[in-house]
Parts: sequence; C-alpha cells; structure tokens
Amino acid sequence: MDLMKEFWNGSRLALARSISAVENETEGYTDILREVYSHTGNAQVIGITGAPGAGKSTLTDKLVKYYRTQGKTVGIVAVDPTSPFSGGAILGDRIRMNDLTLDTGVFIRSMGTRGSLGGLSKKSADAVKLMDAFGMDVVLIETVGVGQSEVDIVKNADTTLVVLVPGLGDDIQAIKAGILEIGDVFAINKCDRDGADRLNVEIEMMLDLNTEEVAWRPPIMRTIASKNEGVEDVINAMEEHRQHLIETGELEQRRRERTVNEITEMVKEQISRYVMNKVTSTGEFDTYVDQVFARKIDPYTVVESLVGKVVK
Amino acid sequence: MDLMKEFWNGSRLALARSISAVENETEGYTDILREVYSHTGNAQVIGITGAPGAGKSTLTDKLVKYYRTQGKTVGIVAVDPTSPFSGGAILGDRIRMNDLTLDTGVFIRSMGTRGSLGGLSKKSADAVKLMDAFGMDVVLIETVGVGQSEVDIVKNADTTLVVLVPGLGDDIQAIKAGILEIGDVFAINKCDRDGADRLNVEIEMMLDLNTEEVAWRPPIMRTIASKNEGVEDVINAMEEHRQHLIETGELEQRRRERTVNEITEMVKEQISRYVMNKVTSTGEFDTYVDQVFARKIDPYTVVESLVGKVVK
Repeated sequence: MDLMKEFWNGSRLALARSISAVENETEGYTDILREVYSHTGNAQVIGITGAPGAGKSTLTDKLVKYYRTQGKTVGIVAVDPTSPFSGGAILGDRIRMNDLTLDTGVFIRSMGTRGSLGGLSKKSADAVKLMDAFGMDVVLIETVGVGQSEVDIVKNADTTLVVLVPGLGDDIQAIKAGILEIGDVFAINKCDRDGADRLNVEIEMMLDLNTEEVAWRPPIMRTIASKNEGVEDVINAMEEHRQHLIETGELEQRRRERTVNEITEMVKEQISRYVMNKVTSTGEFDTYVDQVFARKIDPYTVVESLVGKVVK
Repeated sequence: MDLMKEFWNGSRLALARSISAVENETEGYTDILREVYSHTGNAQVIGITGAPGAGKSTLTDKLVKYYRTQGKTVGIVAVDPTSPFSGGAILGDRIRMNDLTLDTGVFIRSMGTRGSLGGLSKKSADAVKLMDAFGMDVVLIETVGVGQSEVDIVKNADTTLVVLVPGLGDDIQAIKAGILEIGDVFAINKCDRDGADRLNVEIEMMLDLNTEEVAWRPPIMRTIASKNEGVEDVINAMEEHRQHLIETGELEQRRRERTVNEITEMVKEQISRYVMNKVTSTGEFDTYVDQVFARKIDPYTVVESLVGKVVK
C-alpha cells in the first residue's frame, strides 16, 4: 500500500491521511490499524482534561513547546465530544496553536463527534496508535470538557492531567468531582487568580475522601500557562508518574486492561453491526416496529424474538 | 405479582419500587416493563437541560407548582450523568424540592450513573414509562449538564426545554452550541442579569444558522425562576409546541423513531451480553489478550476470529 510506504518513510501527509482513513472508516482502514499495531506502545500517552475555560489549550501549547526543547516529538489528538451538532466549534481555538504546526516535530489532529460517542473514544485511541507507530515520543489527548465522554477518551492515556481554574461557580466545582478521580496530576492554572488556595484545599479534601491505600497521591501543581509559569513542574510531575507506573508494574496493568476493553468493545461493535444488518434486512423488523408503536406488542417480547433468531 | 397489583392501585411506594427494580435489573424487571408498556404514551414528556448553574432545578420546581395549579400530576426523573465516580452529588440540590415531595400529586426520582451511560439513557426512559403508566399527566426529565449524554437522555422527551443564563464565559457559551439544536423552547433564566439581551441575540443567531425550512421556530422565553417570573410563558410555549407536534404528525414520527431506536439498542445490548458471555467463558479469550498485549497478534485479527465463532 503506497500510503503506508510513505507513512513508514515519515511522511506527515501519510500520517494525516491514515488518521482520516480510520476516522471515516474508508475501505481498508483496518489493514492500516493491523499494520501499525506491532509498532505501538512506545509513546508516552498523556490525557489532558478539565473544566471549560481552565486554559487547557494554552497549557497544552506550553507543554508541547517544553517537550520540543527536550528534543521530543509530540502528537496531539484534540477531541471535542461536546458538540454533537455544531461539529466541534471549540476546537477553533486550535488556531492559537498555529505556530506549533510550523514545527515538523509536532503533529496536531482535531476530532469532533461523528457517529456515536463510543466511536469517538475508539477513534481517538486509534489516532493515538497511529501517532505512536509513526514515532512520536509523546502523544497528548486533549478534551474540552468534563463529562463521561471525556473520561472515556482520556482513559486511553497512561497519565491524566486534570486542569482546573480558581473562581468558577459552585455548580461547576461540583461537576469537577467527576473528573477528580481520573487525575494523576492536577494543575491549578491561572493560579494568580483569587481562590487558588481554596481550590487547592478543595482538591486535597476530595483526594482525602479516597480512604483506600493509594500508591500514588496525585500532586497538585500551580501554573500560569499564559506566562509559561509552572510548566516544567507539570512535566516533571507527569514524568514522575510515568516512572511510578513503570516501577510498580501499573503501566503494564493499565495497558492490559485497555487491551481487554478494546477487544471487548470491538467484538460488541462488530456483532451489533452484523446483527442489525440481519435484523433490519427483513420486512419483519418494520412489522414489529408498527406493532410495538401501536402497543399491540411490547418491545421486550420483540427483542427476545429478534435475538433468538440470530443466536442459537 | 403483588408489586404490580399495588402499582395499579396507585401506590407511590410500588412506583418507587418498580423503578428501583428496573434500575437495579432485579429479577423479573422485564416483566414489569412488559406489563406497563401498553399503558404508556399518555403523559406529556418534557426534557429539561442546560448549562450548569442556569437554575434548572429552581425553574423545574416552579414549573411543577404551576402544573399542580392546573390539577395535573407530575413525575420528575432527575438524571445526573456527569459524576461517574462521585455518584451524583449535584442531585443533592433535589433537597430544595423537598416541599414538593409532600404533594402526593408529584413523584420525584433521582438517577445517577450506574454502569454504562447508554444504560442511563435507557433506564431514565424506563422510569419515564413507569411514571407515564402510573398515570402522571406530565413527566419531566431533568439533566444537570450539557454533554452528549444529556442530549441522549432528553431525546426521550417529546418537547425539550433548554435553560440558559446570561454572563457565563465564552468557552461555556461555545459548549452550549451543542445543546442548542435539541431545544424546542428556550428559557433565559436570571434574565435580570447583565447580558440577557446579548444572549438572546446569540441564540437567535444560532437558530438562524439553520438554513433548512423549519416548521417550528423555537421561542426564547425570559424567566426569573426564583421570583416565579415568566414560568407561565414557558408552560404555554411548551404546550404550543406539543400542539404543533400533534397537528403536524411530528409527535407520532418522533415517537416512532424512538421506538425503532429503543428496539435496536435493546437488541444490540442483549446480543452483546450473550456474545461476551460466550467469548469470555473460554480460556481462549485470555490467551488472545496475552498475545495482543505482547503484540504477537493484532486486536483486529483477534476480533475477527472471535466474532466468526459466534455468528455464521
């Protein structure tokens, strides 16, 4: 395949095209994934999430620039699951990172919602694999928000950085609770704002709620990304976490769990497609829908009957 | 079944227990759903979503009280998909609605994330069905946030009310874009705050982006829920939307689509469970995982092999 020949030759265009192929599921995209798979597992994969307005993009920008001073190549998968209809307007602020795109050691890819959310988590994971196999030393997965979908997406990372900001309302603080438990490292960005100390205490308190014996206590770093302050501290904290994962064997364990989940999800997905094709290709399906809609039969009985016909 | 006998006798305790049975998938829960199904489709089902901090709970509270003055019974399903780990802390502000719980014409149920998100959308839809069959005239589905999961949940409603508030940051404004397209009626709450006019213009502009011929232009109402201002206007707008749905046949069309989705999702879910049980019960699965993890084989080949063994 010409595309993959160029990919292995280090063509950035080929990398971009391979990601598009996977994203759009164009013919032969699984061959691409098959081919790169044995070359994955080398990159340091970092997830970045946090409250909207926390300055994740600016911080990501500075992190990338720091990694570049260390001579590392960096891939960025910027994922926006919050705009199912508008198609990812927030990623417009990628434009801010334009100066990065001139650096051939950096590769940025935005992904919005197309099709199902489960799909987005899977596809961003595939984009990470492609960047990993391409040879990027560090791959960042950045998300825009704080929902379950963001949690699913950053679960594909080895280390997750949660970016918070002082002075958001209580309601938003509460929502943050959902992402606290996935943080391996915390950054309080815009830490010169009022409320940074209070936020720090709040995070510590939430961490204290976890009464289990923990091998890693997530450190809380303070940054002012716009002034490039605290960026090195965050990088070092993430590197420490990586060392911790390696030394304790947790890296292997996390990645093994991801492998199980990945296979499981793919099996479910493929079986679903097969079954739905089979089920909806008969006129029977429409008849059932009519009957259920008219409340002549309940959907549970219909599902039983449909499932029974596919599996023995 | 004693539970269902009491359910049909109008026991609120039986309603609560039936929802718990469905939520926890206790034995025989599908029998409950089968039994109530033919009694559903009578309630006016309204979804309420919007930015955190917009005052949805307060507005919901006032809407319920207004419906009560009209002599209508009201069920409320309050769903919190944003806290996968903390288990729904935000719903704590349900406590504010405590005075409602003294009214036997009102039934409130909170649901947090248990298991998968798809599950939460399905389970909240089932809770709506139970309240509908129980005889509630109006059923409100309220969510806390603005993500894809909230969109999935309110899709179970006939009419969706999107509650916004002036003066949130630009970043949060942008996120709102995702929920704009599901709004049938908009409420600008806390409309005495600075920025209400600007927000109104912004919503109008977003609505104008939709260049398709639309039969229903979502009206934008202004409310101060805490002072009970504008509540009747919102109720009337939602009633107008309901009439529009009925007259144009769109109500039937929306509900038919939901029936198709419901059956499809249930078939997928059941097939997945069956297949995963079958697949993971063999030692083969673990062997495959080991080989994939060691990168001796790629996951796509494994999935092909596993799927091929279940379906012909």
